[in-house]
Amino acid sequence: MRTLQPTLEIDKDNIMKKKELEAQINAKKTFLCVGLDTDPNQIPAHLKKQKDSVIEFNRQIIDATKEFCVAYKLNTAFYEALGAKGWEIMEQTVNYIPSTHLKIADAKRGDIGNTSSQYARAFFDILQFDAITVAPYMGEDSIRPFLEYENKWTIVLGLTSNKGAENFELKRLQESGRYLYQKVLETAAQWGSVNNLMFVVGATQSEYFAEVRKIVPNHFLLVPGLGFQGGSLTDVSRYGLNKEVGMLVNASRAIIYAGEHEDFAKESAAIAAQYATEMSTMISKYVS
Amino acid sequence: MRTLQPTLEIDKDNIMKKKELEAQINAKKTFLCVGLDTDPNQIPAHLKKQKDSVIEFNRQIIDATKEFCVAYKLNTAFYEALGAKGWEIMEQTVNYIPSTHLKIADAKRGDIGNTSSQYARAFFDILQFDAITVAPYMGEDSIRPFLEYENKWTIVLGLTSNKGAENFELKRLQESGRYLYQKVLETAAQWGSVNNLMFVVGATQSEYFAEVRKIVPNHFLLVPGLGFQGGSLTDVSRYGLNKEVGMLVNASRAIIYAGEHEDFAKESAAIAAQYATEMSTMISKYVS
Repeated sequence: MRTLQPTLEIDKDNIMKKKELEAQINAKKTFLCVGLDTDPNQIPAHLKKQKDSVIEFNRQIIDATKEFCVAYKLNTAFYEALGAKGWEIMEQTVNYIPSTHLKIADAKRGDIGNTSSQYARAFFDILQFDAITVAPYMGEDSIRPFLEYENKWTIVLGLTSNKGAENFELKRLQESGRYLYQKVLETAAQWGSVNNLMFVVGATQSEYFAEVRKIVPNHFLLVPGLGFQGGSLTDVSRYGLNKEVGMLVNASRAIIYAGEHEDFAKESAAIAAQYATEMSTMISKYVS
Repeated sequence: MRTLQPTLEIDKDNIMKKKELEAQINAKKTFLCVGLDTDPNQIPAHLKKQKDSVIEFNRQIIDATKEFCVAYKLNTAFYEALGAKGWEIMEQTVNYIPSTHLKIADAKRGDIGNTSSQYARAFFDILQFDAITVAPYMGEDSIRPFLEYENKWTIVLGLTSNKGAENFELKRLQESGRYLYQKVLETAAQWGSVNNLMFVVGATQSEYFAEVRKIVPNHFLLVPGLGFQGGSLTDVSRYGLNKEVGMLVNASRAIIYAGEHEDFAKESAAIAAQYATEMSTMISKYVS
């Protein structure tokens, strides 16, 4: 297993700005995001019996993986499926994540302005996430309220890694002959800056990464789909890394469900360490 | 004020299928949906002091308006902005809505398949909504898990009423020269049927309603944006109503914040009654 890297302190305000995030990546030589998509039916049997099993599972995963990653992503659907209690668990989990790590709500929200303001409040003020994923379909005024939060990140869906991306994201527009997802990147990039805006780009679409980087060379990309969804870290890194790394690659099930027994967190740590080692190689190879 | 109309019983399973919904509309001569987008800062002062003020507000609004509407729509953002407690309030509110009314979660969710399954579970199994709004950007497999629920409704965003609709929804596709939103309607209509699929079509876009009806003549349309968003009921009705009415028109702020004092619910009822009366006229005029 890879040796432990020193972790920089972030500033006292607990604000994860671009330079703090980059400092973490550079210090730890990893751009791994661990996806806490915790399904109570899939956690180890010995935990299932216990009260607060999901939060206990999350805590152990965080403790075991934090040296190998720079971000955690909570898929809100998995918590909403637990009702009001799930919302509490989400809150407890966010609070448990160290301030050295970016806290992402993978919520894919988006609605008219006054409604998006409520979502922004829910995830930035109440739950204190650093970042939220949003859906672009409804356009600028559906995303603007998230961008108005100082020192928070809005992560706009660009190209996703699922088959359904072909239905609309990969349709060409008449005005330019270019794909809808390209229009989304071009347009949304104007609404914010590299300091408050990232894009979701799916890992199974590595042939598109070069094109994405032409449009948004300097933005952070959040890349889901590594592991079970079949993305290749090498391809993604070759085309996606920029001179400041500029990428967070998420793995969820492959890490959090690595083990089934009492030592499950050790197995999760081992997988996370493998990813981090590979990422360190990629940084050496592609980031000058 | 308009006289009270008899309300049919729905079947014993509390399932709101197309024919039950149409029976309610025909019996009450209204296609009004009341939007329970409750903001604790905007409810009457005398309620604010009280514990459980939001649920108490919602209960009084439901009691006062239920004879004039056939559906209630909860905008999930407003409840999420209250944290875990908001999720409980949402649950209590859904449970309070009579089984004679369609219960819509205006959640605009959508993610890869295994995540959308969790959202479907959250809103259909745990919260027991009859319907949920979903965002189409990620395509078929992001919406399919909702459609797999028997006797539930999936309401796909088509054309929305906000300015941002111009950014992407109203871009023309190269393959057909038609708008993206038209492609969404055409494509999504194939994923389900008139019995489990509706579409969101914004009310300020009444010039588009005729076009929408060419694509989905027989589907229910959920029309937000009446009232504060400036939609005209007459225009929407002329182009949007079909031979089974086929439309739910939502009003939220205009109804729920009609009054500021202890008799606020009476004022809400009066506004809801006005809408219902106008809708009754529209049904007589445009539904043969």
